[in-house]
Amino acid sequence: MNKQISSIQNSYIKQLVQLKDKSRERKKTGLFLIEGEREISLAIKGGYELESILFYPELFSLEQLNELTNQQINIIEISKEVYQKLAYRDTTEGVIAVAKSKLHLINSLKFQNKNPLILVSEAPEKPGNIGAILRTADAAKVDAVIIANPKSDLYNPNIIRSSVGCVFTNQIATGTTTEIIAFLKAQHINIYCAALQASVNYNTQDFTKPTAIVVGTEATGLSNEWLENSTQNIIIPMQGEIDSMNVSVAAGILIFEAKRQRNFI
Amino acid sequence: MNKQISSIQNSYIKQLVQLKDKSRERKKTGLFLIEGEREISLAIKGGYELESILFYPELFSLEQLNELTNQQINIIEISKEVYQKLAYRDTTEGVIAVAKSKLHLINSLKFQNKNPLILVSEAPEKPGNIGAILRTADAAKVDAVIIANPKSDLYNPNIIRSSVGCVFTNQIATGTTTEIIAFLKAQHINIYCAALQASVNYNTQDFTKPTAIVVGTEATGLSNEWLENSTQNIIIPMQGEIDSMNVSVAAGILIFEAKRQRNFI
Repeated sequence: MNKQISSIQNSYIKQLVQLKDKSRERKKTGLFLIEGEREISLAIKGGYELESILFYPELFSLEQLNELTNQQINIIEISKEVYQKLAYRDTTEGVIAVAKSKLHLINSLKFQNKNPLILVSEAPEKPGNIGAILRTADAAKVDAVIIANPKSDLYNPNIIRSSVGCVFTNQIATGTTTEIIAFLKAQHINIYCAALQASVNYNTQDFTKPTAIVVGTEATGLSNEWLENSTQNIIIPMQGEIDSMNVSVAAGILIFEAKRQRNFI
Repeated sequence: MNKQISSIQNSYIKQLVQLKDKSRERKKTGLFLIEGEREISLAIKGGYELESILFYPELFSLEQLNELTNQQINIIEISKEVYQKLAYRDTTEGVIAVAKSKLHLINSLKFQNKNPLILVSEAPEKPGNIGAILRTADAAKVDAVIIANPKSDLYNPNIIRSSVGCVFTNQIATGTTTEIIAFLKAQHINIYCAALQASVNYNTQDFTKPTAIVVGTEATGLSNEWLENSTQNIIIPMQGEIDSMNVSVAAGILIFEAKRQRNFI
C-alpha cells in the first residue's frame, strides 16, 4: 500500500513547496523537484537518484509509474489539492519526483573525446535563455556545459522546464570564472571568448581542436578575467540597426559552426 | 502648452489601455503603443508615423522629448498614475508613443539585393521567440522577415519588448502560407524548409542564391503546404537525447550559415 497525502498542511508537502520556490532550500537539503514524465525519465537516465515520486492518480496511473522507474523509492499518492500546490507547469501530467542534486564540480568533468567541445556561459540570468542553451548543447552533444559564476541554481523549476529536461542530459559543471579558466588551461583547451574587443569573425577559427566557446551576458558581456585569458576573441558580425542578439541564439550559432567544422561528428 | 492628463478615467487613456491589452483593438484602430526611448526612436527611423507621445515629466523631460522627434504630434504630459496604467515594462523610462500600424503586405516587399535572403516563420507562438528571431534577422540584415499564418499581431507589447525594437528595423510581411508560397515562387526564390522529412544537412545547400529559410513551430513543425512546395528540406543534425531545439536558435543557426556562405556581405 502506498503512502497517501491529501492535505497541503502535511509537513512533507510544506517542505516540497519550499523546494519548489526557494533556491536556498534546495541548496540546504540537496533536493529538488522534477515535474513531468519525460523530465523524470531523463533524470533517471542521467543518473539522478530519486527520493520519492508523488502522483495524482486521476492524471497519472500506478501502471505508468511502474514503467517510469523500478527504483526502490517512496511512492506517494496525492490529492488534487496537493498536486496543484506542488505543480509549477501549465500542463498537468500528474507526476512529480523529489530528486537528489548533483555537485557539478569542475574537476569531476570527464571527456571521452580527445578534442572536446565545451560551451561556457558566464553568469546567465534568464531561465529561458539557460534552458535554450542546454537544449542546443544537448542537440550538439557537446562534451560539457560549464556555467561560470551562476546567478541561480540549476534546479530552478523554470530552468528545468525551459530546458525540457536537457539539464539532465548534459554533462554540466559550475564554478567561479577563476576555477574554470584554471581548469581549461590545465587541460590545454583553447578559450574562444565571444566579445567585441580585438575579435575576429567566428568562422575564421579552427574549432576542431580542444575548444571552449565562452559567452557572457547580453547586458555586460564577459568579465575581464575571461578576456585576459582568451586564446582568441571571436565575434558574430552584425549589420543591423541594433548590436544585439539573444545570447542563446549567439551560442547556438557558434556551437554549430564548430559542429560544422567537425562534420557533425 | 501641452495637453495634460492626470486621471486614469480619461477616455483617451482608457482607449490606450485597450490598445495595450487587446489585439482586436489594435487591429480595429490601426494603432498601437510603443514604450521606451530607444524603441520609439527605432520606430521613427523605420518610418512609423506617431499619433501622440505621452510622457511622465519626473522620468522623461520635455528636452529629451524634443530630441526624440520633431514630428507634429500630440504631446501629452501624464501623471504617475496614468503612466503606471499604460506602462507594460519593468523599466520605467517615462515615455510611451501611440503609433500607426503598417500593413505588412506581402506584395509590398522590396528587395535591393538581387539574391535576397529571407527568413520565414510559420505560426510562431511565443513572443519571446518572435522577438529573438527579429533580433537575429536585424543582426544578419536579412532582406525580409515573413510571418506566415501569424498567431498574434506584431504589435503585441511582449513582441515589441522582446525584440528590443527590431520589430521596427526589419522589413516584415505577414500573410497566409498560400500567399507567401505564391509570392516566393513568382520571385524565383528557393524555399528551404527546416524539416525532418527527406531532408539533407543544412550546410550542404547553396544559400548564396535567392533564398528563403522557413521554420515552423517547435510543437508541430511546418505545415504540409510548405513541405510540398519546398525546393529542398534541410535539417540541423541533432545527436542528443532530445530532438528539440529552440526555434529561434535553429533559425539563427540556419540564417548565419547563409551569411557565412555569403561572406557576411
